[in-house]
Amino acid sequence: MSGAERVEVVGIGTELLLGQIANTNARWIGERLAEIGADVYYHQVVGDNLDRIVDVLEVAAARTDVVLVTGGLGPTEDDITREAIAAVMGVPLERDASLERWLRERFAGFADGPMPENNLCQADVPRGARTIENPRGSAPGLVANLPHDVRLYAMPGVPSEMIAMMQSTVLPELSASIGAAVVRSRTLRSVGIGESRVAELLADLFPSSSNPSIAYLASAGEVKVRLTAKSDSVEHAESMIEPLAIEVQRRLGDVVYTSHDETLEQVVTRLLSASGLRMACAESLTGGAVGARMTAAEGASDVFVGSAVTYTAQAKHRVLGVSLGTIEGPGVVSRECALEMAAGARRLFSSDVAVSLTGAAGPEPHDGAVRGTVWIGLDAEDASHARGYVAAGDRARVRRWAEQAALDLVRRHLEGMPLPESDRII
Amino acid sequence: MSGAERVEVVGIGTELLLGQIANTNARWIGERLAEIGADVYYHQVVGDNLDRIVDVLEVAAARTDVVLVTGGLGPTEDDITREAIAAVMGVPLERDASLERWLRERFAGFADGPMPENNLCQADVPRGARTIENPRGSAPGLVANLPHDVRLYAMPGVPSEMIAMMQSTVLPELSASIGAAVVRSRTLRSVGIGESRVAELLADLFPSSSNPSIAYLASAGEVKVRLTAKSDSVEHAESMIEPLAIEVQRRLGDVVYTSHDETLEQVVTRLLSASGLRMACAESLTGGAVGARMTAAEGASDVFVGSAVTYTAQAKHRVLGVSLGTIEGPGVVSRECALEMAAGARRLFSSDVAVSLTGAAGPEPHDGAVRGTVWIGLDAEDASHARGYVAAGDRARVRRWAEQAALDLVRRHLEGMPLPESDRII
Repeated sequence: MSGAERVEVVGIGTELLLGQIANTNARWIGERLAEIGADVYYHQVVGDNLDRIVDVLEVAAARTDVVLVTGGLGPTEDDITREAIAAVMGVPLERDASLERWLRERFAGFADGPMPENNLCQADVPRGARTIENPRGSAPGLVANLPHDVRLYAMPGVPSEMIAMMQSTVLPELSASIGAAVVRSRTLRSVGIGESRVAELLADLFPSSSNPSIAYLASAGEVKVRLTAKSDSVEHAESMIEPLAIEVQRRLGDVVYTSHDETLEQVVTRLLSASGLRMACAESLTGGAVGARMTAAEGASDVFVGSAVTYTAQAKHRVLGVSLGTIEGPGVVSRECALEMAAGARRLFSSDVAVSLTGAAGPEPHDGAVRGTVWIGLDAEDASHARGYVAAGDRARVRRWAEQAALDLVRRHLEGMPLPESDRII
Repeated sequence: MSGAERVEVVGIGTELLLGQIANTNARWIGERLAEIGADVYYHQVVGDNLDRIVDVLEVAAARTDVVLVTGGLGPTEDDITREAIAAVMGVPLERDASLERWLRERFAGFADGPMPENNLCQADVPRGARTIENPRGSAPGLVANLPHDVRLYAMPGVPSEMIAMMQSTVLPELSASIGAAVVRSRTLRSVGIGESRVAELLADLFPSSSNPSIAYLASAGEVKVRLTAKSDSVEHAESMIEPLAIEVQRRLGDVVYTSHDETLEQVVTRLLSASGLRMACAESLTGGAVGARMTAAEGASDVFVGSAVTYTAQAKHRVLGVSLGTIEGPGVVSRECALEMAAGARRLFSSDVAVSLTGAAGPEPHDGAVRGTVWIGLDAEDASHARGYVAAGDRARVRRWAEQAALDLVRRHLEGMPLPESDRII
């Protein structure tokens, strides 16, 4: 290793100071830099004011080796990061002809009028700086040398654009300059188990600050377990992780749905594709969210036929053929309704598998069912199963957990695993 | 008003630098200070290192009037904010006898053993500083005078303890020293127009750092325009915003869908509800996302019946009755298909209005249509309209903009506005 680099992360934007958004860019950057062994020593945030941005960059350059800047690279007049960098470097801004051409072409591709001239300021580059391509927007990033031999990377504040530039340019360059430390991570993801239970099952495997290390992240209806090893070669780092990943999977069991950081919908898509099966949905409380997730990636039409979003009882009857007896008897939040919805969707879409979701998302009870009650149904040539539970939390959480439960039921069915029984409370 | 105070917010804790948590304390503080008209000029974050904390406090004291510090006041050995403040003041720490007594009594009240002696460091106070009572924990806050006549408030990093001290002491003291400033904001949201075009249309209304001020925020297929006024009364601040909001709306025209920060789906729901109409969808490229958005809030079943997510050509034919002639002729990404899907959804769900979405989300072309091509259809008793365009960007962007275009078409129909024609490229 050629020694650590001291990094400062600078966020630019008055909206950060006003508290309209939290500085989640700095958080994301901090996590990634920790993974490659770079040390973040400071953050600063400053508003859209030239003098103060210059002050902040000078403070950062005087105390660190690398400065990562986010924000202020857009086309409006409050986007002045370019000017501030040029001022700190003591050089003029120069319009880059190829960037100007790229901007004009990009704009001609989708604009309904002449390009506002202020867009062209995004082609201005401090003399001596180089640019980072932006695959997701119009503002290029910048790489510049500041006084004190400090390297500066400037990226847009839009998270997806910042992340693309971090991955394409900043992280690889920083990794290279830090030296031969190699950090490898593997992420296992689980559904249907709580974070504290996961931690309890795995606690003895990882004394604190060991290598490999473990981190838990609970979010959006699942728990991620990330194993990270640092070594001097990829092979060795991988060989440090491998036996631990196997042990983690053994202890957690079939709640683990991936050991390679796939999403649940990616796993379901892969399993459907491997068996040449096609799936349909019948959604009520989720309003279409399961279908939206199944079609987020390209190629979905090979495995996903469609979803009948039937939000009212009448729609369930008319579109999916849920019987009036069920609607008037056990009601629309019931085992019977979930089973009839799944069977109806499989019939309507001529699919091989169908999954259904019906429930009381809250905050009010629905059709006699207490808030948080969810029934998930599955219908296939050789299977008909329903699972019911009551979820805690607000409407958004109840909906998200229902999506997870539905996709997980399909996963378990396709993998030939035991299907969860009803009356479990999550 | 007695003049603004320049404030810097300093977060202390290595966990912030590692990205384990986001700096939500700074966000909360920023929102509260904006409400009382105090100007936050900078944030800094630093880890649990004495030299670097001293450096950060000296930087802050040299450029602002008030420094608000969170974190590092607990009892463990990495809690060194007290030492750093004393070092910047150039004074020793002195144990406060009454604080020590309070800590011992507090601990005796709920501890199941002798108090660890390191707890007593929380009774250490830099000479000349005063303390802020902590109603929720053991670490008192501190108020100190730094060089350059700068006032410093130090609070714990635990949000509930920080908030209690902000409310009991910091906000009242800052309000008193600033005077009676009041800040009010209003947010207009627009769809179907770019950020740079919005800025161009409004630029002359707002010289930089004027009062009221304007800010633009582009995200997720729309542009928000926020107007903020500072004054000495709520009524006056509102009366400063009102004429400007009207002028902004006049200049931007009917692309503005709310002047009170509603989401597009909230506006559509409100308009449907006001006219007693119910809506259905037919979705292809969005996979169910429009239905998911329409049902995100409670009470959706009064205005939303359902959505037919028909991802394959066969499903469009079977479920929605799209004709084989259309599927084989112009194809599934066409004006004809969008119109037939909308009519089919209105029929299937017996709704008053139906909107349809079909397109080539990418990255590959779909059924002869270039990537990014989208057709939106609308069907109602008195209307049948389709709009086509080609969107730039990746799959997620094409899908999000299609959702926006579909909801906006319904909004325009319900408000009796002109419906956008086809062949517009966005």
